[in-house]
Amino acid sequence: MRILVLGGDGYLGWPTAMYLSRRGHSLAVMDNFSKRAWEREIGVEPLFGIRTLADRIDCWREVTGKEIELFVGDLQDYAAVEAALDLFHPEAIVHYGQQPSAPYSMMDRERSVFTQVNNLVSTLNVLWAIRNLNPACHLVKLGSMGEYGTPNIDIEEGFIEIEHRGRKDVLPFPCQPGSFYHLSKVHDSHNIRLACKIWKLAATDLNQGVVYGIETDETRLHAALETSFHYDEVFGTALNRFCVQAVGDIPLTIYGKGEQKRGFLNIKDTLRCVELAILNPPRQGEYRVFNQFTEIFTVSELAHLVADQSLKLGFAAKTQHAENPRVEAEEHYYNPTHTKLRDLGLKPHHLSDVLIKDMLRRIREVKGQIRREIILPHVQWKSGGQETALLSVAQA
Amino acid sequence: MRILVLGGDGYLGWPTAMYLSRRGHSLAVMDNFSKRAWEREIGVEPLFGIRTLADRIDCWREVTGKEIELFVGDLQDYAAVEAALDLFHPEAIVHYGQQPSAPYSMMDRERSVFTQVNNLVSTLNVLWAIRNLNPACHLVKLGSMGEYGTPNIDIEEGFIEIEHRGRKDVLPFPCQPGSFYHLSKVHDSHNIRLACKIWKLAATDLNQGVVYGIETDETRLHAALETSFHYDEVFGTALNRFCVQAVGDIPLTIYGKGEQKRGFLNIKDTLRCVELAILNPPRQGEYRVFNQFTEIFTVSELAHLVADQSLKLGFAAKTQHAENPRVEAEEHYYNPTHTKLRDLGLKPHHLSDVLIKDMLRRIREVKGQIRREIILPHVQWKSGGQETALLSVAQA
Repeated sequence: MRILVLGGDGYLGWPTAMYLSRRGHSLAVMDNFSKRAWEREIGVEPLFGIRTLADRIDCWREVTGKEIELFVGDLQDYAAVEAALDLFHPEAIVHYGQQPSAPYSMMDRERSVFTQVNNLVSTLNVLWAIRNLNPACHLVKLGSMGEYGTPNIDIEEGFIEIEHRGRKDVLPFPCQPGSFYHLSKVHDSHNIRLACKIWKLAATDLNQGVVYGIETDETRLHAALETSFHYDEVFGTALNRFCVQAVGDIPLTIYGKGEQKRGFLNIKDTLRCVELAILNPPRQGEYRVFNQFTEIFTVSELAHLVADQSLKLGFAAKTQHAENPRVEAEEHYYNPTHTKLRDLGLKPHHLSDVLIKDMLRRIREVKGQIRREIILPHVQWKSGGQETALLSVAQA
Repeated sequence: MRILVLGGDGYLGWPTAMYLSRRGHSLAVMDNFSKRAWEREIGVEPLFGIRTLADRIDCWREVTGKEIELFVGDLQDYAAVEAALDLFHPEAIVHYGQQPSAPYSMMDRERSVFTQVNNLVSTLNVLWAIRNLNPACHLVKLGSMGEYGTPNIDIEEGFIEIEHRGRKDVLPFPCQPGSFYHLSKVHDSHNIRLACKIWKLAATDLNQGVVYGIETDETRLHAALETSFHYDEVFGTALNRFCVQAVGDIPLTIYGKGEQKRGFLNIKDTLRCVELAILNPPRQGEYRVFNQFTEIFTVSELAHLVADQSLKLGFAAKTQHAENPRVEAEEHYYNPTHTKLRDLGLKPHHLSDVLIKDMLRRIREVKGQIRREIILPHVQWKSGGQETALLSVAQA
């Protein structure tokens, strides 16, 4: 199948492109490298230096003999989106091409507006391009489990049957996202649903949990194929950050009580989920939502899992509660359904002691590159917090 | 009270400013006159020529002795928003300052993106300005009943208690809006709810039905105080358009079956509802939603009400079904709750034969100015429709 990966330079985009290329699909990636620009802007970088996308594509060709086409362009530029569809003729588009960080979106007014405009316009442009050039193309959009928030009822996959005063309907699951970033994903979901309805497009919204992991089977083929791994407060995610803290002899910071529950998944499962969505497309006019995670942990549980394995490797890892920079429930019910991808054939890679140890060992190799000062939270959700605290740190 | 009306040059904004000024409040209005630019862009204009906002403010001063302050600026420009708040110190902000037309948002890609970016950024800027300059200022935001769509259950006012698998929660009412414009209002609602939660702002979202009417008690004080009245397919609303069609000897066009039910209200009730929201503010941190309409009609019922009164005035009004340019249910359940504003004291002006006759008489005075070619629908929701059909007409 001909598959275009938007955001193909990113943590998930690049491994997804390799994974699908290796399985015989024709791949193209599109990116404008803005994520690398945001990193420079706030003074952070991935733990392992990663190659340019062009270099990685060259390496992929050398290692596997397979070609990945490259489109350099901004998804906010409709002409660029249309050109990519026009030249490549994708049958499926995997859309990761967005500003991906909740803390980034909460730093200040400019970045909250930028995040929402960037993410919303990118998706609108993709929808219009599919409508105008190839309505049969399946859009696989990366959403977030954070779209739902933490309601006191079971979270269903996108829709819920509601009985109310003697009548029934199946309606979109109510969303209570907790950041301007997560809001942008909710806006996208609403826009995609309308496009499917009025233009008869076919779309899958993958409401993904928190992804962890450094490696995939494809990144391991060659050192030049590695993907970006973030541990800073803005682009890093919980498990990845805890592992870096453990290796760096920095206390593992648990925000607030740490009883916040979230869905997690291994980066390898992200790739498989995207593949399953592509291989089992919705019908034209259908907008469907899959909840894409494999396990639920509290933040505190995760920290202790990492601390335990760290001790075995000789790191004196300690956990430490820090004031929660976010406004969120720190103790809550959480039981989201996630059967649709399993029904399609997902066999989860569960979080194991082995994986955590592998991550810790890999991070140990570059221990000297860990920058303590970019880990602790400075971005505050509440007003009264300093809007640009992180910037000051980064500039210091 | 010190009240700032955003979009103060508009159909509702200007009458609201006069209404509140007359009741003793200190008023300021802000506008960048972009609505007038959109009218020129697509080649339509209000039926009655209206004065500039500066002229109307001058006239208001002469007629009543009362001052309305004017800020000229774009709500997408944060500095302009902040300047208005900084100079005027409003205790309440009434936010009408948005692209207000569903058909406009569906004309083409550019206008769908523009509508969402314009509306979303304006509201984000207002939220950030309130947060930064005066968190106690009450935001009264104009939403739309169209945010809900037409679910098969009773629509509640913003929130609904859901019981699901033995657990309960009160959650945002699920939204299924039917245009990129209505989606922009849903995006706003989500953004405002988060701002209230994390910054402890106070906001009222007025999910308004379709407004009809030419006059308010204040516009009648002087001819130079009139507000804009649209009958074209893009900015005109159902009842207003039917009245113009009747006077213009043009068949009253009912889209599709005409069994689409909507909530309607008199422009005078809009002003009173906004006043009631201002006089009864929410507590800090509270985001509340009022459903703002007084009566439900099917489109077909409305057309026949107008046709009946038209005949009495000697117009040979006929109704005619036209292909529905929208993608919407044409027969559906519709029973939205709307008790909160009534509980605060709203005494509705119900749609009466007298009002319709008054509208028809007023329109008759300018019968010669009716342009038939801007009334019939050209903007298509479905793909395959001509994106720029209306533009072609306007340019012809």
